[in-house]
Formats: sequence, structure tokens, C-alpha cells
Amino acid sequence: MGEKETIEKLEDLGKSMIKQVKKRESPTFETPLRSRGNIEYDKSVGFLRLGAKKEERKFLNVAQAKTFMQTVAVANKTKKFLKEGLHTSIRGLYYQLKFSLGENLDESLFEEQTESNALIEDLEVAMGIKREDLHLTTDRKGVVAGNMIVKDTFAGEETTIDCSKQGRSGWMIPSDVDNGMEFVDVKADYVLVVEKDALWQRLNEDRFWKKEKCILITPKGQASRGTRRLLRRLADKGLPVYVFTDCDAWGWYIYWTIKTGSMTLAYLGRDFSIPEARFLGVTMADIDEFEFLKKLTIKAKPIDIKRAEEMLSYPWINVHPEWVKELKRVVRDKRKIEQDALQGKRLTFVGEYIRKKIKGKEWLP
Amino acid sequence: MGEKETIEKLEDLGKSMIKQVKKRESPTFETPLRSRGNIEYDKSVGFLRLGAKKEERKFLNVAQAKTFMQTVAVANKTKKFLKEGLHTSIRGLYYQLKFSLGENLDESLFEEQTESNALIEDLEVAMGIKREDLHLTTDRKGVVAGNMIVKDTFAGEETTIDCSKQGRSGWMIPSDVDNGMEFVDVKADYVLVVEKDALWQRLNEDRFWKKEKCILITPKGQASRGTRRLLRRLADKGLPVYVFTDCDAWGWYIYWTIKTGSMTLAYLGRDFSIPEARFLGVTMADIDEFEFLKKLTIKAKPIDIKRAEEMLSYPWINVHPEWVKELKRVVRDKRKIEQDALQGKRLTFVGEYIRKKIKGKEWLP
Repeated sequence: MGEKETIEKLEDLGKSMIKQVKKRESPTFETPLRSRGNIEYDKSVGFLRLGAKKEERKFLNVAQAKTFMQTVAVANKTKKFLKEGLHTSIRGLYYQLKFSLGENLDESLFEEQTESNALIEDLEVAMGIKREDLHLTTDRKGVVAGNMIVKDTFAGEETTIDCSKQGRSGWMIPSDVDNGMEFVDVKADYVLVVEKDALWQRLNEDRFWKKEKCILITPKGQASRGTRRLLRRLADKGLPVYVFTDCDAWGWYIYWTIKTGSMTLAYLGRDFSIPEARFLGVTMADIDEFEFLKKLTIKAKPIDIKRAEEMLSYPWINVHPEWVKELKRVVRDKRKIEQDALQGKRLTFVGEYIRKKIKGKEWLP
Repeated sequence: MGEKETIEKLEDLGKSMIKQVKKRESPTFETPLRSRGNIEYDKSVGFLRLGAKKEERKFLNVAQAKTFMQTVAVANKTKKFLKEGLHTSIRGLYYQLKFSLGENLDESLFEEQTESNALIEDLEVAMGIKREDLHLTTDRKGVVAGNMIVKDTFAGEETTIDCSKQGRSGWMIPSDVDNGMEFVDVKADYVLVVEKDALWQRLNEDRFWKKEKCILITPKGQASRGTRRLLRRLADKGLPVYVFTDCDAWGWYIYWTIKTGSMTLAYLGRDFSIPEARFLGVTMADIDEFEFLKKLTIKAKPIDIKRAEEMLSYPWINVHPEWVKELKRVVRDKRKIEQDALQGKRLTFVGEYIRKKIKGKEWLP
């Protein structure tokens, strides 16, 4: 969607409220419910999304008036950013609002750390747009190397970035990979997502992406919004997406969030999920195949066991016998394996491992 | 120092131990003490460093034998990495050691999160080399934009990266900015370090670095080793370094670690400190000058107050009346200001603020 349409959507929101006021009605704002009860795993599409339940907020309601006003203020400010052609973070938006609204603003709604900034999510969901479209920048941390050209139109300049010519560094995935961004000349057979930057650096040094014709990406832990959008866009080009993480609570979470989304991020829907993604490893089953890994497992933490048990109850996970077997093994043995362990015998084994897994189609769904 | 010299140093360490064994003496390993009692602020140079106290570890000492053996194993493995021409992380090193030494390895010495990995630090300090020289990669997170060309020789390829042509992304600061790295054609009047990536994105969108002829860097919070080394190298080229952070515990810590180093990192000495660095803001005194900031301060947390009080006791800080005034004001008012607050009135004010501060030389030492 272009900026013009976003501005129009914001203006329509305002106009409909003015209409209500003129009719001497209380302005209302309708938004899909984001609570657990309205989150469902849609089997036919393969990701978590919001159901049909909606919530109507009224201005003339003591409990809702303040939030209502703040939502309108957010819409107003972001429209201004769009008109100015400038971007800022949610924190920057918070201070713009604080400057206008003074103490009348709930600071906790804008905590930097919380992914869920209720007011922004309200607008995103209700209007069917992304915060990036509202000129809000988000945390960025992923890195890319591979045969791919990025055409970046930004601040009035067009830049061409060749992701195969970034040396030891890689191309840093920006906050917004949609507006003014094109990915052309993608000469790759697949996308490889590696949880840890340390492993990415290892594979980059081996020029793995060049030898294997892949796009090598690390989200550096949990994938940022920008990284998830980039993965979605690459998957849309028909590239298979393979994910390689630790065999532990955090690694599985990273994978499943990329694949199906998560409870808290279910409101994002398809734009931020890659149901086509496959899990390469590390798996507990790897121990059986690679003898040397046996002495490189480490003790699972209570959180790993707890998470494995929880995942066994998720209907989108426990339908896969491979995953059930994996998770039950962690619960039983109380051991886990890090992807770094693959370097135990020789540093270059990481690449060999990935090559073998992909060649033999030894992945988990 | 070149790789050849590093290998020689490691070999000399081994040879001297063999000599001791042949003389039927216990092998020993001498290293400067890294405990508080041996950390001093050297006024003449402007950073924290280790004093003259040394510690001798003996192999034939029940309490020291295990660590001793592990230190030798680390030296041995890193020599192997150097010979192979491959790099890995400390975690990768841990698994290589675990593979060789089995359970005989203290995992806690290699926790990913702790900056201080005792064994590596021992080697760095005792041998006067950096872990990067031992082919160990570290966490990386800083980003750069500006008129600077990077020549990166890596994995047998030479890449030229133009930091003025990185669009919205910027050039990602690698783990090692010394070996095989050259910074040429640096056309800038100064270096600007901006604590938060969100503010870096804001200034990058304004093309601040282009208009002001500066190198715009965000460490994304606490500066990584790579970022600190880059700053040191740019300062060595004669560029002034200005730091712009939040006015709070974390922001001050970021500044002072860049400038003088910190207690835990004192062993790094000059290579990782920039005593020439100056503090641009945000300061409490800014409230007096910029009226609108008054309503954009937020409540200081107990950690901010505690940190301000601690800093008032540091002899390298309390010699500066400007800092004493600032810190006392935070303690008294129990308020703080984030750099994001400068956007409250208008998004582009951040750049105006920095310009004014630098032009008027309104910085803190």
C-alpha cells in the first residue's frame, strides 16, 4: 500500500468520527479483539491469526475515553509524520504525544521493551496497516549475505546494495523492508536462517552462501519485524526457507515464531509468518547420527523442559510426529544441544552439517 | 601485530613451559592481576588500567592445576585456529575444548553473556594481545554512516565498502576492525556517537552525516569491542569524538566506558578507550535552555540515582565541576531525560540540538 492510501485511511477514520459527532452520537472505534480468546491457529493457512470477534470503543465511556483520545492522537501524529515524510520510533512518537497531551499520557503504553504497544496495535489491526506504513521505525538487528541486490530508495536517494559484497559485515536488515525497497537479482536456491550471529560469521567466513547459492541470514536471536518481513518477501519469490537454531526453548520459539507467528504477535497474520519454513536442526536425533555430539550436549534448563511440555500441547505442533519425538526426548533426557556444538570436532563442520541436511531433506516440518 | 607474531608468542609460551618441565620445575604462567586492587585510573593518560601487581600460576598446585591446564588448552586451540586461518566465537572455542577435554571443563568460564571469560582474559593480558588476534569473534552490533571507505580483506577476498552508500541500513561494525581492515578516505570533521539506534535512524534520514560532514555511529547501547576499537582508530586519525546519550545511569555508563574504560574492562587499556571523547548531552542543564524539555523529563529510577551517587565518588569524574553539577541535579530532582525527548517538539530538532552543541562547544569533558 502506498503512502497516499495510508493517509486516506487515517483521514477516513477521522471523518467517520466527525460524522458521528455531528449526528450527536458518541464517536466509536472498532478493532478486532487481540486477547487469547480470539486467537486461532488456522490450519488451512498455517499461521496464528485473530478470529472474528471485535470490540467497540466509545469516546463517551468513562473507562474508554482516555485510551480513545490517545488512539486518535496517535492517528493524528502518524498522519503528520507521513505528510512530513519523516520517520521516528515509538519512543519518538511517545514524546510527540507527551508534548501535545502533557501528563495526560500513560507512559507504560509506550515502554520501549514491550513489543506490544497497545495503541499502535489497535491502529494496525483496525485499519489493516503496518506500523512501518505509519512511518514508525522498529528495532532492527538481522544481517544478510548472499547473491541479492537491494534497491533502497530512502531520504530522496536511491542506493544499490550488493549483499554479496559486504565483506565480513553483511547487509544490515532495516526496520522497513517494504516501502521504497526492492530485492532484485536474487540468485539463490534457498534462504538459510541461522539463529546466532556467531554461527553466521562462521558460515560467512566459509563463504557458505557463495558455495551453496543461498541467502544467509541471521536474525540474531528472535527475528525482528524487518527480518520476518524480508523472509516473507523471499518466500514469496518461491525460495525455500530453512531455519537452523539451538535445540532448546529459545531456538524452538525463534523457529515457530518465524513459521506460524506467536500468540502475542498473532495480530500480524500472514505478512509476518512463513508457514513454508522448515527446521533443519539442531535436533536431539542428531546425537544418533553424529557420535561426537553425544559428549557436547548440555544440561537442559527448567525453562527448556517447561517449554517442550507446552509445545507438546499446541495443536499446530503436536500434529507432527517428528516434533513430538524431539520434544519428548528433551523432556525425558533433560539435555539440550547448541548449534555452536557442531564446531566441536572441526570449525567447518557447521557447513557440512547443513549441506547434508538439505541434500537429504532431513528437516522437520 | 601480524598473525605470524601472534603464533610466535603462543609458541614461546609453550616453549617456556617445556623448558620448565625439562628442568623438572613446575610450569608457571604469569599474568597481571585483574582484581579491583590492581585497577587504577591513570590521570596522565586518561583511562583505567591495570597496575603492576602480578600473579603466578603453577601447574603443580592443586588449586591451580585445572585452570592452568585449561589456559594452555586455550592457547593451543587458538594457535590451531590461526594456523587454519579460521575464526570462531568463544562459545565455539568452548566446544572445541569440551571435545578435547571432555567433562574436565568448567562451563561457567565460557558463558556467552559474560564479557569476562577468565581464561581468554588471562591470555590477552599475559601476552599483550587481543582476543580478536587469536581469531576469536565477539558480539557485534554497532552501525556506521558517513564519508568513509572501508577496505575489508576477508576470507581471501578484498571488498571495498562505502559508508556513504548504505541507504537506510548503514555499515555494520564487525567483530574485528583491525586485522585485514583499513579505513581510508575518511572525509569528516568529527565522529558522532549516538546511543540509540532509533536516533541514528532519525539522523540518517535527515542525512545529518552528509550535511555536517561527520561519521555517524550508533553502538546500539553499550559499545561492543569492535565499536570501541573503531572509535579508537578514528580518534587516532585526529577526529574529535562526540558522544550523545540519554541523561541516565545507562547513558552515562556508555559514555564513560567509551572514554576511560570500566572496572571490568580495565585490562583492555588504551586500545579500547578514547580519553579524548566529549559528552554532548542530553544533560539536565538542557532543561534551562530548551523550555519544551521541561515537561518531557521522566522519573529517574533508583538505579539512576544510585549510579549518579557512585559516579560522584569516582576520582576521574568528580574532578569535573560540570559533571558534579549534572549528577547532583539528578540526585536532587530525581528526574532524567532521554535523547528521544528531543523529538517532542519536532522530529528534526535532534540534529539542530547537536549542531548547536558542537558549534557552541557546549560539551562536558
